Formats: sequence, C-alpha cells, structure tokens
Amino acid sequence: MVKLVVAYGQPADPDAFDRHYAETHRPLAQKIPNVRRFEAGRVLGTADGSAAPYYYIAELWFDDAEELQASMQSPEGQAAGEDVGTFATGGATLMIAEA
Amino acid sequence: MVKLVVAYGQPADPDAFDRHYAETHRPLAQKIPNVRRFEAGRVLGTADGSAAPYYYIAELWFDDAEELQASMQSPEGQAAGEDVGTFATGGATLMIAEA
Repeated sequence: MVKLVVAYGQPADPDAFDRHYAETHRPLAQKIPNVRRFEAGRVLGTADGSAAPYYYIAELWFDDAEELQASMQSPEGQAAGEDVGTFATGGATLMIAEA
Repeated sequence: MVKLVVAYGQPADPDAFDRHYAETHRPLAQKIPNVRRFEAGRVLGTADGSAAPYYYIAELWFDDAEELQASMQSPEGQAAGEDVGTFATGGATLMIAEA
C-alpha cells in the first residue's frame, strides 16, 4: 500500500483551521474514492520538546501509487485538493510514502 | 489513539540506511511494548514534484499518550531511540500526533 501524508504547517488562526477542517475539509476528503484508511489529527508535540514542524497531519491510504494518483485526479480528489488552499494558512506538504 | 511519527531526513548513504533499518532498527522498533500498529516506508515523492522533506517515515500507534511515553521510556524503547542516532545521518524528527 501507499499513503498520502498531508502535513499542515502552523495556521495563522488554529481555531478557524480546526473548524474548517471538521466542517468542510474532512467531509471533502472522505469523498475521495478508493481510500482504504483515513486518519487525521493534531500534532501534540515532539519527543524532545522542540517546536513541532507541523500543526496537523492527515493520511490517506490507497492500494498502490496508481490508485492514489487516479483518486487525487478524480473530481472529488480535485475538490479536496483545491479546498486545502482555502484554509491551510501555514502551508501543506503532500508526500506519498510506502505503507 | 496517538502515534509516534518518525520522519527521517535524506541520509548521506541511502543504501546503508536501508540496510541498517531492515536488519537492525526495524527489529528493535518491533520490540517496543504496547505498539498497536507499526508502519514504515520510504517517501516516494511529493504531490507537486518538489523535493520531499523526508526520506523515510515510520509510525507507531499506541492507545494513548501515557502508554506512548511509558513504552518509549522502557528498555526496548530506549534501545530503539538510541539506535536512531547511529544511522539517521539526515536527522530524525519525532512527533506525537492524534490518530
């Protein structure tokens, strides 16, 4: 399997981020086809107490890289991707990783 | 649940990293008590084709933050943590996140 790791930087307004994620983005992400597992949550800290490089991490698992690409290019994938730009005021790093 | 996300930067010698991870580090990580799920793999790329900030990501899921802390402070957790310093030539960022 592979996963899409979406790592969000610290947003300007964390409350607004949380609200948008729960009310708008999570429902959009959950409409993406062929997602085998979805997980999302806040970064609580680092092991050594240093500042965490990210505020929030979401992961979407797919059977393979081809299915991930096709799903992200679907209308639902495009809608979720475009929505990221509307609330991720701290940026978002999207990585594809083996799972 | 919570997870420990270990994000490894690009190592000086990827082949040596891969070998050490497979032969030494993975067995040490898998001895850590109370790990509910373990997943580890290479970062294959980013969604926009930019350079990925990490080479390899491992994740260990625990029931809650207290269990994570206790497990990482156990002899097995300490051994795995100390081993990271022996092969993570590109550094390692350890984050605790909601899962």
